[in-house]
Amino acid sequence: MTNLQKLQSYLKEQQLDAALVTTPDNVFYFSGFKSNPHERLLGVMVFPDAEPFLICPQMEVPDAAAAGWSFEVVGHLDTENAWDIVAKTIEKRHITISKMAIEKSHLTVERLEALVDRYPQASFVRLDDTINAMRVIKNEAELILMRKAAELADFAIRVGCDEIAEGKTEMEILNAIESAIKAKGYSMSFDTMVLAGEKSASPHGTPGNRQIKRGDMILFDLGVIYEGYCSDITRTVAFGEVSDAQKDIYNAVRKANEDAIAAVKPGITASELDKIARDAITDAGYGEYFTHRLGHGLGISVHEFPSINGTNELVMEKGMVFTIEPGVYKSDVTGVRIEDDVVVTEAGVEVLTKFTKDLIIL
Amino acid sequence: MTNLQKLQSYLKEQQLDAALVTTPDNVFYFSGFKSNPHERLLGVMVFPDAEPFLICPQMEVPDAAAAGWSFEVVGHLDTENAWDIVAKTIEKRHITISKMAIEKSHLTVERLEALVDRYPQASFVRLDDTINAMRVIKNEAELILMRKAAELADFAIRVGCDEIAEGKTEMEILNAIESAIKAKGYSMSFDTMVLAGEKSASPHGTPGNRQIKRGDMILFDLGVIYEGYCSDITRTVAFGEVSDAQKDIYNAVRKANEDAIAAVKPGITASELDKIARDAITDAGYGEYFTHRLGHGLGISVHEFPSINGTNELVMEKGMVFTIEPGVYKSDVTGVRIEDDVVVTEAGVEVLTKFTKDLIIL
Repeated sequence: MTNLQKLQSYLKEQQLDAALVTTPDNVFYFSGFKSNPHERLLGVMVFPDAEPFLICPQMEVPDAAAAGWSFEVVGHLDTENAWDIVAKTIEKRHITISKMAIEKSHLTVERLEALVDRYPQASFVRLDDTINAMRVIKNEAELILMRKAAELADFAIRVGCDEIAEGKTEMEILNAIESAIKAKGYSMSFDTMVLAGEKSASPHGTPGNRQIKRGDMILFDLGVIYEGYCSDITRTVAFGEVSDAQKDIYNAVRKANEDAIAAVKPGITASELDKIARDAITDAGYGEYFTHRLGHGLGISVHEFPSINGTNELVMEKGMVFTIEPGVYKSDVTGVRIEDDVVVTEAGVEVLTKFTKDLIIL
Repeated sequence: MTNLQKLQSYLKEQQLDAALVTTPDNVFYFSGFKSNPHERLLGVMVFPDAEPFLICPQMEVPDAAAAGWSFEVVGHLDTENAWDIVAKTIEKRHITISKMAIEKSHLTVERLEALVDRYPQASFVRLDDTINAMRVIKNEAELILMRKAAELADFAIRVGCDEIAEGKTEMEILNAIESAIKAKGYSMSFDTMVLAGEKSASPHGTPGNRQIKRGDMILFDLGVIYEGYCSDITRTVAFGEVSDAQKDIYNAVRKANEDAIAAVKPGITASELDKIARDAITDAGYGEYFTHRLGHGLGISVHEFPSINGTNELVMEKGMVFTIEPGVYKSDVTGVRIEDDVVVTEAGVEVLTKFTKDLIIL
């Protein structure tokens, strides 16, 4: 069954008249068409029985068809009301909308109002969790792509290490990494992060003109997209001599990363994994400096369901892919984060990112 | 008056109890803090009289303060419910919410439901147009940044032209452009587009391994961010001999671009500008191949209010900044788009992007 057919069965089962999918990554999941529509409407409308359709900006109609979507594609011009076109296309199929599933975590209030205007009697129910439950389990075809994406992430970290030299700026190193990936014909899955010295202690810092100097730890956080699927890796390396205090933080984070990975298997919960990593860091005395969740789901989106945090009781199943990325951010010493991408397997775990976690001192 | 003070006055005037700003670019406009929160909550809550507050992921609290936000910053951990924290922070101020302004084109249905849960008696009104009306007029301080951003875009086009050579791929050229910008310490305002030959006829195509060959036209669409403000430029150049058919399209698009720019002044409407460009292309016989609007507003966002299209009756005013980007996409000949960033001035127009529009044959 294709992803689309699965959604159609769900609609039938739940007696829903239609589902509107608008999150670009979900549109890709159901249609094979990846596009960033900015403020314009992009969506897949799916029915239990009738032919689905894809609505997109008029100028992208040929691209949608070329991406392999074999059903109707409806374009809208900037001068047209896209919702009128949606309503007309539904009408052509002689479908009455009394219950429509929408993505409540993506659809804006304005867009819901446009639907309510046209279907004032209809109720609108949440589709998000259904799609999350589908996407969270990766099949072998998807895992093949994710292994490739992770391999490219490993390569990118290697490039970053090779570039480090005294006096170089974070941006110069970042640049070399992104160039190497682009030269291979791939794109990054998010803005690459290269943070040196005190800046490594800002978990969402911005790379700039900070120059590498002896004694710095340098944090790389990056990912690559391979045929629509993302990787996401973090490594922290050292340049020149590093202090015992820096090494101690590194070892604590590494232990947290490795303990959590060793515990991954079907049946364990997200919160248990988070706790294992957090305990390792707390035991080392840095609990208060691990200020974020352990990780997040990974796939078509670089951040997707599930969140691996201390309150998520989701039970891990075979085929789930997520990051394990404990970090300690102590601004007077250093920041360290070590992040891997893992798949839950029948036997336990497969780690997709393979770059060494031994402390590299360049 | 600061942007924040203007919003506070508006709330007073409209007797609104609060405004929640969640679009990241609007958060930057009111707080100076630029961040991409992904799925996490980032927002500025503004009241007519009480102290505003910024809510963001816990780990970004120091960054928000460092960005110059001098009021309260409230962090939320991944394990906390951010909406409970919002409600508590409002409660601390002894404020009763009976009417709250929200950004209906950004706030998701899920987030509105979280607010309705906590304020079931409240009504939620649209804030979007008010913020658009504020942001659409750029002051001189903003224009200084936008001129710099445009200058960097001109530079990037020059780099692209210098890189073109037989056999090079689109990605190699793109890479050289982005490297040159990053080496200066700046970021692109969106994914750079380099499209060669038949690919130039796909207005939203994806650069890849297509190699440059004689007779190609190559379309560059790119922009640079300077201190939070964006530029956006498109130029189409030729490699080797080009046919009369290609030149004819180029000339039609150039005339459309120049006619529309010449008409920019306070008092003209967006739709009139669109029509002037469209008429030039229609007169040249390519009307059906100009499949998108003339342009879009530009500023903190690379696509912002207003849309310059055939149905927008918005009257241009001094200080508005937008793109003028007619295009013709004829897949059996070539695609051509020529895009400039313009400001409405008292006297008429200032063109920010200055790269030549003479047909460059490399």
